[in-house]
Amino acid sequence: MHAVDVVAMLALLQYLVFGSLVGKARGRYGVKAPAVTGAEGFERVYRVQMNTLELLVPLLPALYGAARYWPQAYVAAAGGVYLVGRVLYYRAYVSEPSSRGLGFVLSIAPVMTLVIATLVPALLGKPLLVA
Amino acid sequence: MHAVDVVAMLALLQYLVFGSLVGKARGRYGVKAPAVTGAEGFERVYRVQMNTLELLVPLLPALYGAARYWPQAYVAAAGGVYLVGRVLYYRAYVSEPSSRGLGFVLSIAPVMTLVIATLVPALLGKPLLVA
Amino acid sequence: MHAVDVVAMLALLQYLVFGSLVGKARGRYGVKAPAVTGAEGFERVYRVQMNTLELLVPLLPALYGAARYWPQAYVAAAGGVYLVGRVLYYRAYVSEPSSRGLGFVLSIAPVMTLVIATLVPALLGKPLLVA
Repeated sequence: MHAVDVVAMLALLQYLVFGSLVGKARGRYGVKAPAVTGAEGFERVYRVQMNTLELLVPLLPALYGAARYWPQAYVAAAGGVYLVGRVLYYRAYVSEPSSRGLGFVLSIAPVMTLVIATLVPALLGKPLLVA
Repeated sequence: MHAVDVVAMLALLQYLVFGSLVGKARGRYGVKAPAVTGAEGFERVYRVQMNTLELLVPLLPALYGAARYWPQAYVAAAGGVYLVGRVLYYRAYVSEPSSRGLGFVLSIAPVMTLVIATLVPALLGKPLLVA
Repeated sequence: MHAVDVVAMLALLQYLVFGSLVGKARGRYGVKAPAVTGAEGFERVYRVQMNTLELLVPLLPALYGAARYWPQAYVAAAGGVYLVGRVLYYRAYVSEPSSRGLGFVLSIAPVMTLVIATLVPALLGKPLLVA
Protein backbone atom coordinates (compact mmCIF):
# COMPACT_ATOMS: atom_id res chain seq x y z
CA MET A 1 0.00 0.00 0.00
CA HIS A 2 1.18 3.52 -0.82
CA ALA A 3 -0.22 5.12 2.31
CA VAL A 4 0.31 8.78 1.38
CA ASP A 5 -1.47 8.37 -1.96
CA VAL A 6 -4.31 6.55 -0.18
CA VAL A 7 -4.78 9.30 2.40
CA ALA A 8 -4.49 12.04 -0.23
CA MET A 9 -7.14 10.43 -2.44
CA LEU A 10 -9.45 9.79 0.53
CA ALA A 11 -9.19 13.50 1.39
CA LEU A 12 -10.19 14.35 -2.20
CA LEU A 13 -13.09 11.87 -2.15
CA GLN A 14 -14.32 13.25 1.17
CA TYR A 15 -14.27 16.73 -0.34
CA LEU A 16 -16.17 15.55 -3.43
CA VAL A 17 -18.79 14.03 -1.11
CA PHE A 18 -19.14 17.39 0.69
CA GLY A 19 -19.58 18.94 -2.76
CA SER A 20 -22.39 16.55 -3.63
CA LEU A 21 -24.08 17.41 -0.32
CA VAL A 22 -24.04 21.08 -1.37
CA GLY A 23 -25.80 20.07 -4.58
CA LYS A 24 -28.46 18.23 -2.59
CA ALA A 25 -28.84 21.17 -0.19
CA ARG A 26 -29.56 23.44 -3.19
CA GLY A 27 -32.61 21.36 -3.96
CA ARG A 28 -33.69 20.88 -0.36
CA TYR A 29 -33.53 24.57 0.59
CA GLY A 30 -34.53 25.94 -2.82
CA VAL A 31 -31.30 27.93 -3.39
CA LYS A 32 -30.89 28.17 -7.17
CA ALA A 33 -27.52 28.72 -8.88
CA PRO A 34 -25.73 31.16 -9.02
CA ALA A 35 -26.98 32.18 -5.53
CA VAL A 36 -25.01 30.82 -2.56
CA THR A 37 -27.00 32.56 0.17
CA GLY A 38 -30.65 32.75 1.17
CA ALA A 39 -31.12 29.77 3.50
CA GLU A 40 -29.10 29.17 6.67
CA GLY A 41 -29.29 25.38 6.23
CA PHE A 42 -27.83 25.60 2.74
CA GLU A 43 -25.12 28.06 3.82
CA ARG A 44 -23.88 25.71 6.54
CA VAL A 45 -23.30 22.84 4.10
CA TYR A 46 -21.77 25.26 1.59
CA ARG A 47 -19.39 26.67 4.20
CA VAL A 48 -18.22 23.13 5.11
CA GLN A 49 -17.31 22.51 1.49
CA MET A 50 -15.58 25.89 1.16
CA ASN A 51 -13.66 25.45 4.41
CA THR A 52 -12.59 21.99 3.26
CA LEU A 53 -11.41 23.47 -0.04
CA GLU A 54 -9.48 26.11 1.93
CA LEU A 55 -7.67 23.36 3.87
CA LEU A 56 -7.15 20.92 0.99
CA VAL A 57 -5.11 23.50 -0.92
CA PRO A 58 -2.33 23.51 1.70
CA LEU A 59 -2.90 19.87 2.78
CA LEU A 60 -2.06 18.20 -0.50
CA PRO A 61 1.31 19.86 -1.24
CA ALA A 62 2.30 19.58 2.43
CA LEU A 63 1.39 15.87 2.49
CA TYR A 64 3.55 15.12 -0.55
CA GLY A 65 6.21 17.57 0.63
CA ALA A 66 6.52 15.91 4.06
CA ALA A 67 6.62 12.47 2.38
CA ARG A 68 9.91 13.51 0.75
CA TYR A 69 11.53 13.94 4.19
CA TRP A 70 9.71 11.64 6.64
CA PRO A 71 8.57 8.02 6.74
CA GLN A 72 5.35 7.49 4.85
CA ALA A 73 3.51 6.05 7.89
CA TYR A 74 3.91 9.23 9.97
CA VAL A 75 2.79 11.45 7.11
CA ALA A 76 -0.23 9.25 6.40
CA ALA A 77 -1.15 9.26 10.12
CA ALA A 78 -1.26 13.08 10.10
CA GLY A 79 -3.53 12.85 7.08
CA GLY A 80 -5.74 10.38 8.96
CA VAL A 81 -6.24 12.88 11.79
CA TYR A 82 -7.28 15.45 9.20
CA LEU A 83 -9.87 13.04 7.72
CA VAL A 84 -11.44 12.44 11.15
CA GLY A 85 -11.32 16.17 11.95
CA ARG A 86 -13.28 16.96 8.80
CA VAL A 87 -16.03 14.47 9.67
CA LEU A 88 -16.40 16.05 13.13
CA TYR A 89 -16.37 19.51 11.56
CA TYR A 90 -19.13 18.61 9.12
CA ARG A 91 -21.36 17.12 11.83
CA ALA A 92 -20.84 20.05 14.16
CA TYR A 93 -21.29 22.80 11.56
CA VAL A 94 -24.53 21.37 10.22
CA SER A 95 -26.09 20.98 13.66
CA GLU A 96 -24.67 24.12 15.32
CA PRO A 97 -21.97 26.29 13.63
CA SER A 98 -20.56 27.62 16.92
CA SER A 99 -19.66 24.06 18.01
CA ARG A 100 -17.30 23.48 15.07
CA GLY A 101 -14.13 24.26 17.07
CA LEU A 102 -12.87 20.72 17.78
CA GLY A 103 -13.36 19.50 14.23
CA PHE A 104 -11.61 22.61 12.96
CA VAL A 105 -8.60 22.19 15.24
CA LEU A 106 -8.28 18.49 14.35
CA SER A 107 -8.25 19.34 10.68
CA ILE A 108 -6.02 22.43 10.69
CA ALA A 109 -3.43 21.05 13.15
CA PRO A 110 -2.28 18.25 10.77
CA VAL A 111 -2.08 20.77 7.92
CA MET A 112 0.13 23.11 9.99
CA THR A 113 2.22 20.17 11.20
CA LEU A 114 2.83 18.89 7.67
CA VAL A 115 3.76 22.35 6.37
CA ILE A 116 6.31 22.82 9.19
CA ALA A 117 7.49 19.20 8.76
CA THR A 118 8.33 20.04 5.14
CA LEU A 119 9.67 23.55 5.70
CA VAL A 120 12.20 22.74 8.44
CA PRO A 121 14.05 19.84 6.73
CA ALA A 122 13.89 21.73 3.40
CA LEU A 123 15.58 24.73 5.06
CA LEU A 124 18.17 22.47 6.71
CA GLY A 125 18.87 20.65 3.44
CA LYS A 126 17.98 17.24 4.89
CA PRO A 127 18.46 14.58 2.18
CA LEU A 128 15.34 13.55 0.29
CA LEU A 129 13.96 10.07 0.89
CA VAL A 130 13.72 7.91 -2.19
CA ALA A 131 10.04 7.45 -3.05
CA MET B 1 6.00 15.82 -25.10
CA HIS B 2 5.22 15.33 -21.43
CA ALA B 3 1.48 14.96 -21.89
CA VAL B 4 0.45 15.08 -18.23
CA ASP B 5 2.35 18.31 -17.60
CA VAL B 6 0.83 19.78 -20.77
CA VAL B 7 -2.74 18.93 -19.74
CA ALA B 8 -2.15 20.11 -16.16
CA MET B 9 -0.80 23.47 -17.30
CA LEU B 10 -3.60 23.90 -19.86
CA ALA B 11 -6.10 23.34 -17.03
CA LEU B 12 -4.35 26.07 -15.00
CA LEU B 13 -4.28 28.48 -17.97
CA GLN B 14 -7.97 27.85 -18.65
CA TYR B 15 -8.71 28.68 -15.03
CA LEU B 16 -6.62 31.87 -15.20
CA VAL B 17 -8.59 32.88 -18.30
CA PHE B 18 -11.86 32.36 -16.38
CA GLY B 19 -10.36 34.54 -13.64
CA SER B 20 -9.62 37.33 -16.11
CA LEU B 21 -13.22 37.11 -17.37
CA VAL B 22 -14.38 37.71 -13.79
CA GLY B 23 -12.24 40.85 -13.72
CA LYS B 24 -13.84 42.06 -16.95
CA ALA B 25 -17.33 41.21 -15.67
CA ARG B 26 -16.65 43.42 -12.62
CA GLY B 27 -16.25 46.41 -14.94
CA ARG B 28 -19.09 45.47 -17.27
CA TYR B 29 -21.69 44.95 -14.53
CA GLY B 30 -20.34 47.59 -12.12
CA VAL B 31 -19.64 45.16 -9.25
CA LYS B 32 -16.85 46.75 -7.21
CA ALA B 33 -14.47 44.76 -4.99
CA PRO B 34 -14.92 43.37 -2.37
CA ALA B 35 -18.55 42.67 -3.44
CA VAL B 36 -19.17 39.41 -5.32
CA THR B 37 -22.93 39.76 -5.67
CA GLY B 38 -25.30 42.39 -7.02
CA ALA B 39 -25.61 41.52 -10.73
CA GLU B 40 -26.74 38.15 -12.05
CA GLY B 41 -24.47 38.42 -15.11
CA PHE B 42 -21.42 38.96 -12.92
CA GLU B 43 -22.40 36.17 -10.54
CA ARG B 44 -22.61 33.63 -13.38
CA VAL B 45 -19.05 34.32 -14.54
CA TYR B 46 -17.84 34.36 -10.93
CA ARG B 47 -19.51 31.01 -10.21
CA VAL B 48 -17.80 29.44 -13.24
CA GLN B 49 -14.42 30.51 -11.87
CA MET B 50 -15.27 29.28 -8.36
CA ASN B 51 -16.60 25.96 -9.61
CA THR B 52 -13.45 25.52 -11.71
CA LEU B 53 -11.34 26.26 -8.63
CA GLU B 54 -13.37 23.66 -6.72
CA LEU B 55 -12.56 21.04 -9.38
CA LEU B 56 -8.92 22.01 -9.99
CA VAL B 57 -8.05 21.31 -6.36
CA PRO B 58 -8.81 17.57 -6.72
CA LEU B 59 -7.89 17.40 -10.44
CA LEU B 60 -4.23 18.34 -10.12
CA PRO B 61 -3.18 15.86 -7.40
CA ALA B 62 -5.29 13.13 -9.00
CA LEU B 63 -3.72 13.78 -12.42
CA TYR B 64 -0.18 13.47 -11.06
CA GLY B 65 -1.25 10.65 -8.73
CA ALA B 66 -2.73 8.58 -11.57
CA ALA B 67 0.38 9.26 -13.69
CA ARG B 68 2.40 7.29 -11.12
CA TYR B 69 0.33 4.15 -11.82
CA TRP B 70 -0.99 4.39 -15.40
CA PRO B 71 0.40 5.21 -18.84
CA GLN B 72 0.71 8.93 -19.39
CA ALA B 73 -1.51 8.92 -22.50
CA TYR B 74 -4.57 7.58 -20.61
CA VAL B 75 -4.14 10.08 -17.81
CA ALA B 76 -3.72 12.98 -20.23
CA ALA B 77 -6.83 11.86 -22.15
CA ALA B 78 -8.92 12.07 -18.96
CA GLY B 79 -7.53 15.57 -18.46
CA GLY B 80 -8.51 16.43 -22.03
CA VAL B 81 -12.14 15.46 -21.35
CA TYR B 82 -12.05 17.75 -18.32
CA LEU B 83 -10.79 20.67 -20.46
CA VAL B 84 -13.63 20.24 -22.97
CA GLY B 85 -16.16 19.81 -20.16
CA ARG B 86 -15.12 23.14 -18.66
CA VAL B 87 -15.58 24.99 -21.95
CA LEU B 88 -19.10 23.57 -22.27
CA TYR B 89 -19.80 24.44 -18.63
CA TYR B 90 -18.69 28.05 -19.11
CA ARG B 91 -20.81 28.53 -22.24
CA ALA B 92 -23.87 26.96 -20.67
CA TYR B 93 -23.63 28.75 -17.32
CA VAL B 94 -23.24 32.19 -18.89
CA SER B 95 -26.21 31.75 -21.20
CA GLU B 96 -28.52 29.76 -18.87
CA PRO B 97 -27.29 28.37 -15.50
CA SER B 98 -29.82 25.52 -15.42
CA SER B 99 -28.34 24.08 -18.65
CA ARG B 100 -24.88 23.55 -17.14
CA GLY B 101 -25.42 19.82 -16.44
CA LEU B 102 -23.53 18.28 -19.37
CA GLY B 103 -20.47 20.49 -18.95
CA PHE B 104 -20.47 19.74 -15.25
CA VAL B 105 -20.65 15.97 -15.74
CA LEU B 106 -17.89 16.04 -18.38
CA SER B 107 -15.63 17.92 -16.00
CA ILE B 108 -16.36 16.10 -12.73
CA ALA B 109 -16.32 12.58 -14.23
CA PRO B 110 -12.61 12.73 -15.20
CA VAL B 111 -11.78 14.09 -11.73
CA MET B 112 -13.62 11.21 -10.03
CA THR B 113 -12.06 8.71 -12.44
CA LEU B 114 -8.53 9.95 -11.76
CA VAL B 115 -9.05 9.93 -7.98
CA ILE B 116 -10.28 6.31 -8.11
CA ALA B 117 -7.54 5.42 -10.62
CA THR B 118 -4.98 6.56 -8.04
CA LEU B 119 -6.71 5.21 -4.92
CA VAL B 120 -7.22 1.64 -6.10
CA PRO B 121 -3.63 0.85 -7.21
CA ALA B 122 -2.28 2.74 -4.19
CA LEU B 123 -4.42 0.52 -1.91
CA LEU B 124 -3.30 -2.61 -3.78
CA GLY B 125 0.36 -1.59 -3.65
CA LYS B 126 0.76 -1.67 -7.44
CA PRO B 127 4.37 -0.75 -8.33
CA LEU B 128 4.99 2.87 -9.26
CA LEU B 129 5.85 3.65 -12.88
CA VAL B 130 9.18 5.38 -13.39
CA ALA B 131 8.49 8.97 -14.48
CA MET C 1 18.42 23.96 1.28
CA HIS C 2 15.67 22.75 -1.04
CA ALA C 3 14.63 26.19 -2.25
CA VAL C 4 11.45 25.21 -4.10
CA ASP C 5 10.07 23.34 -1.08
CA VAL C 6 10.96 26.31 1.13
CA VAL C 7 9.15 28.81 -1.09
CA ALA C 8 6.16 26.50 -1.53
CA MET C 9 5.76 26.03 2.23
CA LEU C 10 6.21 29.77 2.91
CA ALA C 11 3.40 30.43 0.43
CA LEU C 12 1.19 27.96 2.35
CA LEU C 13 2.12 29.49 5.72
CA GLN C 14 1.39 33.00 4.41
CA TYR C 15 -2.02 31.79 3.28
CA LEU C 16 -2.72 30.15 6.66
CA VAL C 17 -1.84 33.49 8.32
CA PHE C 18 -4.34 35.27 6.05
CA GLY C 19 -6.87 32.63 7.12
CA SER C 20 -6.27 33.35 10.79
CA LEU C 21 -6.73 37.09 10.09
CA VAL C 22 -10.16 36.25 8.65
CA GLY C 23 -11.00 34.46 11.91
CA LYS C 24 -9.96 37.55 13.90
CA ALA C 25 -11.91 39.84 11.59
CA ARG C 26 -15.05 37.75 12.27
CA GLY C 27 -14.78 38.68 15.95
CA ARG C 28 -13.77 42.29 15.36
CA TYR C 29 -16.58 43.10 12.93
CA GLY C 30 -19.18 40.79 14.46
CA VAL C 31 -19.70 38.63 11.36
CA LYS C 32 -20.87 35.24 12.62
CA ALA C 33 -20.42 32.01 10.65
CA PRO C 34 -21.79 31.00 8.14
CA ALA C 35 -22.15 34.63 6.97
CA VAL C 36 -19.27 36.05 4.89
CA THR C 37 -20.81 39.45 4.22
CA GLY C 38 -22.22 42.24 6.36
CA ALA C 39 -19.18 44.39 7.19
CA GLU C 40 -16.88 45.96 4.58
CA GLY C 41 -13.82 45.60 6.88
CA PHE C 42 -14.42 41.87 7.25
CA GLU C 43 -15.09 41.39 3.54
CA ARG C 44 -11.76 42.97 2.61
CA VAL C 45 -9.77 40.54 4.75
CA TYR C 46 -11.92 37.65 3.52
CA ARG C 47 -11.36 38.62 -0.12
CA VAL C 48 -7.58 38.68 0.43
CA GLN C 49 -7.73 35.11 1.72
CA MET C 50 -9.98 34.00 -1.13
CA ASN C 51 -7.85 35.69 -3.78
CA THR C 52 -4.76 34.06 -2.28
CA LEU C 53 -6.52 30.68 -2.42
CA GLU C 54 -7.38 31.38 -6.06
CA LEU C 55 -3.69 31.98 -6.84
CA LEU C 56 -2.22 29.20 -4.69
CA VAL C 57 -4.14 26.57 -6.64
CA PRO C 58 -2.20 27.29 -9.86
CA LEU C 59 1.00 28.42 -8.07
CA LEU C 60 1.81 25.14 -6.33
CA PRO C 61 1.58 22.76 -9.34
CA ALA C 62 3.34 25.33 -11.55
CA LEU C 63 6.16 25.76 -9.02
CA TYR C 64 6.81 22.02 -8.85
CA GLY C 65 6.18 21.66 -12.58
CA ALA C 66 8.74 24.34 -13.49
CA ALA C 67 11.24 22.78 -11.06
CA ARG C 68 11.26 19.67 -13.27
CA TYR C 69 12.59 21.71 -16.22
CA TRP C 70 14.51 24.70 -14.79
CA PRO C 71 17.19 25.29 -12.16
CA GLN C 72 15.74 25.42 -8.68
CA ALA C 73 17.07 28.93 -7.95
CA TYR C 74 15.11 30.54 -10.82
CA VAL C 75 11.90 28.79 -9.86
CA ALA C 76 12.30 29.75 -6.19
CA ALA C 77 12.99 33.38 -7.19
CA ALA C 78 9.67 33.54 -9.05
CA GLY C 79 8.02 32.17 -5.91
CA GLY C 80 9.76 34.89 -3.88
CA VAL C 81 8.24 37.61 -6.08
CA TYR C 82 4.83 36.04 -5.47
CA LEU C 83 5.37 36.13 -1.68
CA VAL C 84 6.24 39.85 -1.76
CA GLY C 85 3.34 40.57 -4.12
CA ARG C 86 0.90 38.98 -1.68
CA VAL C 87 2.13 41.12 1.22
CA LEU C 88 1.63 44.29 -0.87
CA TYR C 89 -1.79 43.02 -1.97
CA TYR C 90 -2.91 42.42 1.61
CA ARG C 91 -1.76 45.86 2.80
CA ALA C 92 -3.37 47.64 -0.13
CA TYR C 93 -6.67 45.74 -0.06
CA VAL C 94 -7.22 46.31 3.66
CA SER C 95 -6.53 50.05 3.46
CA GLU C 96 -8.15 50.76 0.06
CA PRO C 97 -9.36 47.93 -2.27
CA SER C 98 -8.94 49.99 -5.45
CA SER C 99 -5.18 50.34 -4.78
CA ARG C 100 -4.56 46.57 -4.91
CA GLY C 101 -3.30 46.58 -8.52
CA LEU C 102 0.48 46.44 -7.95
CA GLY C 103 0.27 43.65 -5.37
CA PHE C 104 -2.04 41.72 -7.66
CA VAL C 105 0.26 42.03 -10.67
CA LEU C 106 3.32 41.04 -8.61
CA SER C 107 1.52 37.91 -7.42
CA ILE C 108 -0.20 36.81 -10.63
CA ALA C 109 2.81 37.47 -12.94
CA PRO C 110 4.99 34.79 -11.28
CA VAL C 111 2.08 32.32 -11.43
CA MET C 112 1.61 32.96 -15.16
CA THR C 113 5.37 32.79 -15.73
CA LEU C 114 5.69 29.44 -13.96
CA VAL C 115 2.72 27.94 -15.82
CA ILE C 116 4.23 28.96 -19.18
CA ALA C 117 7.70 27.88 -18.00
CA THR C 118 6.27 24.40 -17.43
CA LEU C 119 3.99 24.24 -20.46
CA VAL C 120 6.56 25.18 -23.11
CA PRO C 121 9.31 22.67 -22.24
CA ALA C 122 6.64 20.00 -21.60
CA LEU C 123 5.28 20.59 -25.12
CA LEU C 124 8.80 20.53 -26.59
CA GLY C 125 9.69 17.35 -24.71
CA LYS C 126 12.68 18.94 -22.96
CA PRO C 127 14.36 16.34 -20.73
CA LEU C 128 13.35 16.36 -17.06
CA LEU C 129 15.94 17.52 -14.52
CA VAL C 130 16.81 14.97 -11.86
CA ALA C 131 15.35 16.19 -8.54
